[in-house]
Amino acid sequence: MSRDYSLGEIATHLTAQLRGNPETRITGLNSLKNASAGQLSFLSNPKYASQLGNCNAEAVMLTAEQAETYTGDCLILADPYLGYAKLSSWFDPAPQRSVGIHPSAVVHPSALVKDDVYLGPNVVVEAGAVLASGCQIEANSFIGARAILGEHCHISANVTLCHGIVLGDYVRVHSGTVIGADGFGFAPDEAGGYQKIHQIGSVEIGNNVEIGACSTIDRGALENTIIGNGVIVDNHVQIAHNVVIGDNSALAAFSGLAGSATLGANCTLAGAACVVGHISICDNVVLTARTLATKSITVPGVYSSSVTSALPSLEWRKNAARMGQLDSMARRLKDLEKQQK
Amino acid sequence: MSRDYSLGEIATHLTAQLRGNPETRITGLNSLKNASAGQLSFLSNPKYASQLGNCNAEAVMLTAEQAETYTGDCLILADPYLGYAKLSSWFDPAPQRSVGIHPSAVVHPSALVKDDVYLGPNVVVEAGAVLASGCQIEANSFIGARAILGEHCHISANVTLCHGIVLGDYVRVHSGTVIGADGFGFAPDEAGGYQKIHQIGSVEIGNNVEIGACSTIDRGALENTIIGNGVIVDNHVQIAHNVVIGDNSALAAFSGLAGSATLGANCTLAGAACVVGHISICDNVVLTARTLATKSITVPGVYSSSVTSALPSLEWRKNAARMGQLDSMARRLKDLEKQQK
Amino acid sequence: MSRDYSLGEIATHLTAQLRGNPETRITGLNSLKNASAGQLSFLSNPKYASQLGNCNAEAVMLTAEQAETYTGDCLILADPYLGYAKLSSWFDPAPQRSVGIHPSAVVHPSALVKDDVYLGPNVVVEAGAVLASGCQIEANSFIGARAILGEHCHISANVTLCHGIVLGDYVRVHSGTVIGADGFGFAPDEAGGYQKIHQIGSVEIGNNVEIGACSTIDRGALENTIIGNGVIVDNHVQIAHNVVIGDNSALAAFSGLAGSATLGANCTLAGAACVVGHISICDNVVLTARTLATKSITVPGVYSSSVTSALPSLEWRKNAARMGQLDSMARRLKDLEKQQK
Repeated sequence: MSRDYSLGEIATHLTAQLRGNPETRITGLNSLKNASAGQLSFLSNPKYASQLGNCNAEAVMLTAEQAETYTGDCLILADPYLGYAKLSSWFDPAPQRSVGIHPSAVVHPSALVKDDVYLGPNVVVEAGAVLASGCQIEANSFIGARAILGEHCHISANVTLCHGIVLGDYVRVHSGTVIGADGFGFAPDEAGGYQKIHQIGSVEIGNNVEIGACSTIDRGALENTIIGNGVIVDNHVQIAHNVVIGDNSALAAFSGLAGSATLGANCTLAGAACVVGHISICDNVVLTARTLATKSITVPGVYSSSVTSALPSLEWRKNAARMGQLDSMARRLKDLEKQQK
Repeated sequence: MSRDYSLGEIATHLTAQLRGNPETRITGLNSLKNASAGQLSFLSNPKYASQLGNCNAEAVMLTAEQAETYTGDCLILADPYLGYAKLSSWFDPAPQRSVGIHPSAVVHPSALVKDDVYLGPNVVVEAGAVLASGCQIEANSFIGARAILGEHCHISANVTLCHGIVLGDYVRVHSGTVIGADGFGFAPDEAGGYQKIHQIGSVEIGNNVEIGACSTIDRGALENTIIGNGVIVDNHVQIAHNVVIGDNSALAAFSGLAGSATLGANCTLAGAACVVGHISICDNVVLTARTLATKSITVPGVYSSSVTSALPSLEWRKNAARMGQLDSMARRLKDLEKQQK
Repeated sequence: MSRDYSLGEIATHLTAQLRGNPETRITGLNSLKNASAGQLSFLSNPKYASQLGNCNAEAVMLTAEQAETYTGDCLILADPYLGYAKLSSWFDPAPQRSVGIHPSAVVHPSALVKDDVYLGPNVVVEAGAVLASGCQIEANSFIGARAILGEHCHISANVTLCHGIVLGDYVRVHSGTVIGADGFGFAPDEAGGYQKIHQIGSVEIGNNVEIGACSTIDRGALENTIIGNGVIVDNHVQIAHNVVIGDNSALAAFSGLAGSATLGANCTLAGAACVVGHISICDNVVLTARTLATKSITVPGVYSSSVTSALPSLEWRKNAARMGQLDSMARRLKDLEKQQK
């Protein structure tokens, strides 16, 4: 697992200006505070600039301005945080997969699996599925019938990709996630129960999408659920049937969209932010943590509906109890104002 | 996957009145807006009635009243939406399983598996489990020791059914879901830590129940967790130990019931609606999205405790900051009113 | 599955004083209300003391004080609820695993697996993983490369333990849970999209930790995510990258901590209580159900930010609509008070 690169090759990779010895060996990445000899660090948040003085890193990624006052070795680039991100794959400890199909994998003869694909132990690939070049499917994952995976998709262990779903290129799906399960569709029947609506649609996911662990993206009722390019999805996210999400939106943990909701491009759902069904959120909207959008939003901006902070419970309870009196309070206040005049 | 039925056989299946040629071929279902030649559509929401004029569907399911002003081919029935639901299985693209046990499945010799069951690749069935007629267990799922599955249960890939749980007939469980994991039971010990309480109870699920993806139903501490007939459960739902749920209740995504809570029949928990432990919700109650029930509810009706809608954050924050002053505001308002008299 | 112990051996195990015949056979545990002949019960909550009169249990665990007024057989001990907890494993119906590796398990030759380990069907253990003495890994679970499991870890079916994570001794992980998936780390790139930050850190979990079903603990970005000893985690819990949790804290269902949040020792997150990123909660803090902590908490105590209870929706909506007027109301109230003086 030892990884070892020269500062020079790192500078070339990041198109950064190098100040220092290009032969210096870099064996790891770390924060300014914890970096030690042989490690490369970076300054992303200006409030940590004071840590530069005591930093033991072998070299630091800095902006030109930050580098002026720093005397150690450094890589100078426009966005050190982005530089760190771009370099991070070089130090990723995840196992490198070799090409090939593990003997315990079960691949239907009608599936089209490119020669350079990796299929781990107990992977199941059903009839008519298509796995394009460079796909890696980790152990115990399931690829349903006629599912189509673009190039270089990486599917972690214990993932379920249901029949007929379509992934673009470079899609990353983490463990426990389920793509293409039935949407939650039922019609009330004559007997007071529910008649299942079979979900005939599918799921279409664009390129460069990453989906975290234990998340769900349901197949559409009639048409498809659609996720744009570059969308990033955290853990425990719920994307219901017929949701449409625009490019480069980000969905944090426990966020969700109910059926047929539309989320624009470049949106952010912070943790546990949710959107009810059949409404539309325009491009460039942020919903802060635990906000619930119950009406369509047509103006870009940051929206909230959650309390600002926790209070000691005894104090909070006195206030919360008044919430059920708010309308009365508002009316009484208005009455007083009238009398005042 | 091509599916092709005559309007006549569809009318017979739905006991609908047919206006048009019974020999017309129907190859798909679609919405009024998107339906094309060969497809059957339906009008469920009166607000879409105007779409009937431009609809390219081969035929439409309508009520008698709606059919009066429609000149195209149609199926006339009391509830077109229910008709669509009943017909949807005819167009379901999910793979049809043949009977049989995949050679890679691991079935304990003491398990009782009916001859017409389908067990996919890598399915594990432990000692003493019982799979009744017509069960279909998809790849990589686990059926624990002594679990009992009624007739025609359909278990998707990567599901976990723990030891001893009991499913009725026609139970559908989607991928990633776990039924019968230990309830969250611990007693504080002498050392300031926790002593695990082994969960001795099980889970009993009725007939015609559907459970979405990545949901959990925990086994009971001493007695069983119980789910009634016809209950429908979405994704990411938490049903804790010793919860009891009445028939035909519906639980949307992220909803949950804490330990020993009781939910009546014909209830609806909308998205993220939760019920705290040891309380009881009577029949015919709806909790709206993200409502938290902290006290028992004994009167049927619709209940809420979540804000109505998101506001721009700057505006919201000013208001949210006042929540911690509500009690003070209420007292001051009362003082003013006294002085006014 | 029949379990049968004498009252005498139970008294010895619990260091309890026995009042009754030590030869009496006990075949089960049950609540005061439901216990029948042959079953042992306990009184934990004084409000159920009245049930003692009609209790059909063979014997009851009581405190010395409770035992004074009870005439039946009993075990007298300081904490009957803890006694029940300690005894519960004796009646656990979970299958007892024998030592050995199922022929369908796939174990890399470089993995170190102790002789007395149980590996169920289709378990995958990758290169360099270490499974210490007494580990039990249930069917279809995945142990990634170089993961290290301490002694007597019990991993349920369909669990994913990613590469390099470290579990202490006696760690229990329930089905569907994922430990060590990538943290949600991305840097905005020049093109308006996201550059993935590969997650180089890992996850370290202490001893005697229990983690429920469908929960996620992400690996750290640079350093490790850390869970202390004795921590208990329920279902659907999200622990993001670089979270640090102190010993003996308890996290209920749907609770979560965002990236780099710190939770002290002996804390409780009730159901759906969440902590935003980069803040710190001190020891001995309780967040009540659905509380959102958005600022660090430095004083032990109970904190809340959720409404107290659900109201009928029509009534609630009138009040909720006033939340967006709170700031205005507070200002107008102040104006009135000024005029009053």
